[in-house]
Amino acid sequence: MSSEPKCLQISPIKNGTVIDHITAGEAFNVLRILGITGTTEERLSVATNVVSRKSERKDIVKIENRELRKEEVDRIALIAPNATINIIRNYLVFEKKGVDIPEILHGVVRCPNPGCITNTREPIQSRFEVTAKGLHCLYCDWYLTEDIAGHII
Amino acid sequence: MSSEPKCLQISPIKNGTVIDHITAGEAFNVLRILGITGTTEERLSVATNVVSRKSERKDIVKIENRELRKEEVDRIALIAPNATINIIRNYLVFEKKGVDIPEILHGVVRCPNPGCITNTREPIQSRFEVTAKGLHCLYCDWYLTEDIAGHII
Repeated sequence: MSSEPKCLQISPIKNGTVIDHITAGEAFNVLRILGITGTTEERLSVATNVVSRKSERKDIVKIENRELRKEEVDRIALIAPNATINIIRNYLVFEKKGVDIPEILHGVVRCPNPGCITNTREPIQSRFEVTAKGLHCLYCDWYLTEDIAGHII
Repeated sequence: MSSEPKCLQISPIKNGTVIDHITAGEAFNVLRILGITGTTEERLSVATNVVSRKSERKDIVKIENRELRKEEVDRIALIAPNATINIIRNYLVFEKKGVDIPEILHGVVRCPNPGCITNTREPIQSRFEVTAKGLHCLYCDWYLTEDIAGHII
């Protein structure tokens, strides 16, 4: 096992996207935001609660052969604001970007108000404005201030 | 990157449990069976749709510093009957075991019958008998024959 310490927790990928510096423990919520739940066809590597160089814990998600778009990754900012997105081509970082919290969230988060029209059988997607006070439902004025991860659709 | 091919997709762990040979794409359902969803404190490594030596795809889950018990892992047999469980101590395989489908499942699977007493507000856990025809609800006689992963509680 002498070579073990040289290996990374999860190995580099040839092509795809690496989401690094995810808030510790939030990797599965990040995957949920990306629509990856249950049985999957994706080639993924996930590591949770990894001790990083700065002795802080973090999660990492690697998705092979898929380059995530900016709109897809910005949703991640809701639960992992320090995440960085690395687009990998032929083992090299082709593009590196942070995540920015979008101003408006369409169909990302479920409104906690059971009476909200978005929770009825009407074909209406939820629509939240991101404010300093929390996520503001543009239909019923409810503010979602905690457990955002638990309300992701 | 010359040393890259020698690295495994996810690196060995010092102590804990490795669940290997999981049916390709089912790793997140395996985690759900183990109660690991959403935000987690566990140190996990997950790889999905890995090409194994036999050129077949499989998933792998590594859980550090936790040794899964036989009862916990047997539930995994429902969706990944070829999975193997390796208990790791100091980087070595201390114990290796297959998974056996339990005869009776308590509170593992939700009955698809909306009228079943286990789907009412009564404090009754689901109870299925595992038969050749599928999972047989011992309360309402319903047979669950497909999408078992989607019915895991």
